[in-house]
Amino acid sequence: MTSTAPARLSLNTATTKNWTLREAVDGAARAGLHAVGLWRDRVAEVGTGSAAAIVRDAGLRVSSLCRGGFLTAADRTSTAMALDDNRAAIDEAAELDAPVLVMVVGGLPPGDRDLAAARERVGERIAELVPYARQRSVQLALEPLHPMYCADRAVISTLKQALDLAADHPAADVGVVVDSFHTWWDPELPAQIQRAGAEARIASYQVCDWTLPLPADALLGRGHVGDGHIDFRALTDMVEKAGYTGWIEVEIFNETVWNAPGEQTLRTLKERHLAHVVTP
Amino acid sequence: MTSTAPARLSLNTATTKNWTLREAVDGAARAGLHAVGLWRDRVAEVGTGSAAAIVRDAGLRVSSLCRGGFLTAADRTSTAMALDDNRAAIDEAAELDAPVLVMVVGGLPPGDRDLAAARERVGERIAELVPYARQRSVQLALEPLHPMYCADRAVISTLKQALDLAADHPAADVGVVVDSFHTWWDPELPAQIQRAGAEARIASYQVCDWTLPLPADALLGRGHVGDGHIDFRALTDMVEKAGYTGWIEVEIFNETVWNAPGEQTLRTLKERHLAHVVTP
Repeated sequence: MTSTAPARLSLNTATTKNWTLREAVDGAARAGLHAVGLWRDRVAEVGTGSAAAIVRDAGLRVSSLCRGGFLTAADRTSTAMALDDNRAAIDEAAELDAPVLVMVVGGLPPGDRDLAAARERVGERIAELVPYARQRSVQLALEPLHPMYCADRAVISTLKQALDLAADHPAADVGVVVDSFHTWWDPELPAQIQRAGAEARIASYQVCDWTLPLPADALLGRGHVGDGHIDFRALTDMVEKAGYTGWIEVEIFNETVWNAPGEQTLRTLKERHLAHVVTP
Repeated sequence: MTSTAPARLSLNTATTKNWTLREAVDGAARAGLHAVGLWRDRVAEVGTGSAAAIVRDAGLRVSSLCRGGFLTAADRTSTAMALDDNRAAIDEAAELDAPVLVMVVGGLPPGDRDLAAARERVGERIAELVPYARQRSVQLALEPLHPMYCADRAVISTLKQALDLAADHPAADVGVVVDSFHTWWDPELPAQIQRAGAEARIASYQVCDWTLPLPADALLGRGHVGDGHIDFRALTDMVEKAGYTGWIEVEIFNETVWNAPGEQTLRTLKERHLAHVVTP
């Protein structure tokens, strides 16, 4: 561990897309990080048991597993498949000793315009998954996605909505993700972060910046912390005042970042983390 | 007037971008419409007095003037210029007999990340403009824009926020715009439309659809009603139950729509209005 390594910074493997799981874990360890956030596709490449060993042997922890969810289908077959897939994700999270499974809940089914009904289905299916997750000590972390993904990715668009949905369950079973990119614009954010803290539901804090112009692929418009319009110091302050002291995970979808060497990306992550995210 | 002309449908001239003001007014009149929404650039091309005469002589009304706003500058010179420009827009609205001036409030100033402060400045500057607008019987209509425009176009992102800001003023002076594209995702929308109605603040109802994928220019991702993911019948029902019986304005920014002949666009507008927006 280097002495300048930020203690809480975690590398989400989506940020270094061209690295294998082992490369990302080794890179994070060399950079002095203590945790990585894993995506299921990278885990699947080596198998869950091997992935767990790779992380453990490097002396790291898994901050979160991405992702479960996509629970909005209206038909029985798709729903059964989605629930099966989520149970598999919960099993993987448990085997990886990931405290948190990030849930991206899914958008509107094709041709379906009933947003309220889709949101209701999410609630019902989370309720179905909770006992299974509890048995395996995995917390489901509901992630509100930016409203521009409401139709196709996540019908949960605000932290308030995620917290309202989580309210049916104990905090140890269902928490929420505070992701800067998805939530920074929300006028209710300060109040809802405070609420999330009071309810002990902040399960993950993820950071990347809102940069303009949006790229042709709207999924890839995320920038390094400091490159965009978000006031990270203020946001981190809110999250910490709410009592969250866990990992701060960096998840960046961005062609330019993906094309940069992983070592360089990690250097930038650490610099920006110290310059913008945490109080020195 | 043709017998099948929808009584409340208004053509916003941004929808037929390649038409001059006179062409748009003539086209709308031929299609049997009773109103047009005007953009200031089209008005400026002929002068406000001539624009008013063109609309009046065709037997139409102006449903709204787009747009005032851009009130978030932090420095004194830019602020003075913005207020001057808004007073000019109010004068134009009055001369055009437009009941409503649509306000797009502006994004973050360059390099500025203090969203809360920018939002506060909007409130202060609306308060400065209200007496001037009142004298000219023009209602300022605060338009929440989709959160994806928060950084560069409008720091007001939800109907609740617009209503909270409007609450400092009489409803006759400050109302809100309900625009389907900008607000459809909002879990608070039903409650806030109801509130807007109870406060008599729905100044304009604008429709166009949320279509995917988002285009390279995120400003142009709007579709004809029925081409996307929004349930217009449900939305119109909410707006009408809230007591709004005014114009339903169609404003579409979309390269394909712009490249279509205006007459065809108007035919589609009428068909979709009857098929999706109003109850037959």
